[in-house]
Amino acid sequence: MMHRRFALVSRPKDEVTLDHFELIEAPLPELKDGEVLVQHSHLGLAPASRIRMSEDTRGYRPSIPLGGTVTSTAVGTVVASRNPEFAEGDAVSSFDGGWQTHALSDGSNLRPVELSLAPAPTWLGAMGLSGFTAYVGTIDFGAAKAGDTFVVSAAAGAVGSVAAQVAKAIGCTTVGIAGGAAKCAYVEENFGVHKCVDYRADDFLDQLAAACPDGIDVYFDNVGGDVRDAVWPLLNEYGRVAVCGQISQYNNSATYDDTTAGVAGPSWFPLLTKSLTVRGFLAGNFLTQRYDDFRLDMSRWVRDGDVVSTDYITHGFESTPQAFIDMLKGKNFGKTIVEI
Amino acid sequence: MMHRRFALVSRPKDEVTLDHFELIEAPLPELKDGEVLVQHSHLGLAPASRIRMSEDTRGYRPSIPLGGTVTSTAVGTVVASRNPEFAEGDAVSSFDGGWQTHALSDGSNLRPVELSLAPAPTWLGAMGLSGFTAYVGTIDFGAAKAGDTFVVSAAAGAVGSVAAQVAKAIGCTTVGIAGGAAKCAYVEENFGVHKCVDYRADDFLDQLAAACPDGIDVYFDNVGGDVRDAVWPLLNEYGRVAVCGQISQYNNSATYDDTTAGVAGPSWFPLLTKSLTVRGFLAGNFLTQRYDDFRLDMSRWVRDGDVVSTDYITHGFESTPQAFIDMLKGKNFGKTIVEI
Repeated sequence: MMHRRFALVSRPKDEVTLDHFELIEAPLPELKDGEVLVQHSHLGLAPASRIRMSEDTRGYRPSIPLGGTVTSTAVGTVVASRNPEFAEGDAVSSFDGGWQTHALSDGSNLRPVELSLAPAPTWLGAMGLSGFTAYVGTIDFGAAKAGDTFVVSAAAGAVGSVAAQVAKAIGCTTVGIAGGAAKCAYVEENFGVHKCVDYRADDFLDQLAAACPDGIDVYFDNVGGDVRDAVWPLLNEYGRVAVCGQISQYNNSATYDDTTAGVAGPSWFPLLTKSLTVRGFLAGNFLTQRYDDFRLDMSRWVRDGDVVSTDYITHGFESTPQAFIDMLKGKNFGKTIVEI
Repeated sequence: MMHRRFALVSRPKDEVTLDHFELIEAPLPELKDGEVLVQHSHLGLAPASRIRMSEDTRGYRPSIPLGGTVTSTAVGTVVASRNPEFAEGDAVSSFDGGWQTHALSDGSNLRPVELSLAPAPTWLGAMGLSGFTAYVGTIDFGAAKAGDTFVVSAAAGAVGSVAAQVAKAIGCTTVGIAGGAAKCAYVEENFGVHKCVDYRADDFLDQLAAACPDGIDVYFDNVGGDVRDAVWPLLNEYGRVAVCGQISQYNNSATYDDTTAGVAGPSWFPLLTKSLTVRGFLAGNFLTQRYDDFRLDMSRWVRDGDVVSTDYITHGFESTPQAFIDMLKGKNFGKTIVEI
């Protein structure tokens, strides 16, 4: 068996294409003392990896070096261990497994996976970094509470779909925003939202206002751009925006360009007149503080069926780059997962 | 003696002019049981009153009705009382005294003024609502802490000058932004800033970056617009922006217009990549929680000379509208005060 990985071999300026990646094979590595070899069964793809494909990530996590393996989460099985904390056959997940069939680790980035609670893909979705992001974004950064009107964009996506369900579980009225009638129907059927509004509809602004008759208390922003601008005037006094992603901007070279300021945001006047709070966050920075709470709460919600993790699975390791490209175009329903 | 007041008689679309106000005289009112009559000695003017002169305040405090007295803070003396808590001769301040020579009150909006601590104008500046705004904006909403680089715009203004000194008192490196070389020199001489940068200078962006070699941790935004856009790319990871005012937008009709979204703000991409927090606030909503802390801390700072309150005084009640117009144009150094 060989180690296979996708390396980033050139940097996308706007759209990502298959040419930016190269499949590289090498012998499996030898283990040193303390190391663990994990064979990945599933990879979890996330749009934010697009930011790290640019040379200047504008303060975000480090850029992926040319020739380096593309970043992703992963679930797998320990196939060799020289670390007393892990045994062959252990099911584990990691938040930085990468686009590769195997990963060598000192064990510090591996978390146990309980397949009795949920199948492997769920450990990349609701029980994984996507779920953790939805959890801290909704509860900590959005400060959602019972009775709030909670709106989330990319509501069919990995993070958005869980955020909608977390908000509902804590007593919010939830409204999703997604692209196209099929996705909106899917969100309404699966994620317990009061309503899902299609941002591609001609009367999107009217539909959104009608879906939020009491205004919006919390907006969980995954996309930025025009959808954010539609939400902005509907925010209530003391409204909160948790900025989790800006997917609509990732494939725009202006976003990364030093000579432009990127795409403009909305007027700041409502920030003042309505005492709004807008907070960007990188969930991975809050694992120490919040992972244990998340695991406890989310396990219960998943067990009780309050949170459903939906997977958009492609098959075969070779499908990874295309699955990523499709995800950035919004083709996925739920978490984009590659089953190796 | 007559009661004199300035009523708002028409609504400014862009620039405020003298025509928008009318001086109205009437006999002094009769007191009912429980009421207090205060004769104002000084009025404290604030740019935010401009928002309330528009019909639609976009969620801010209520619009001033046509014919109604223009809002302001005031200091004065009780000249008649049918309220057991107040006696003739008591020095008091109120946050809603208004552009008038006298105000009738049930006493609930009056606070005692200690003229032994500081003269009357200071009770409209550092010890008044301006000082309170600077205090909660810096400490609560900006979450400034020792070692931070703290930048404040309108640093020669009533709120900005106190914010700079509060930030310095708690251990920040402070940088002011003001308009013109004379104002910047004044800010550097009086308010203990490390540097004050002139936003009208051709090389403003370079000067600002040079004044903040470690980036910016907290931006206390009084003005919005181009100055905010210059600060935005310099914010550090976990940077905070306290949005206290948007003075550069107040005289722009687009700000209040339903058919436009106002003047655009900066890109939201750095919110995400640098985990920024932006919070708008109306200090007056936090008096119950924070006024006692403020009064204790600010009294000490004023007594010890850590915070200096500077006054830009015009003389005579009739000068009020022109003083307000001049303040919106940035002519004031410190708190704009009318000495009646």
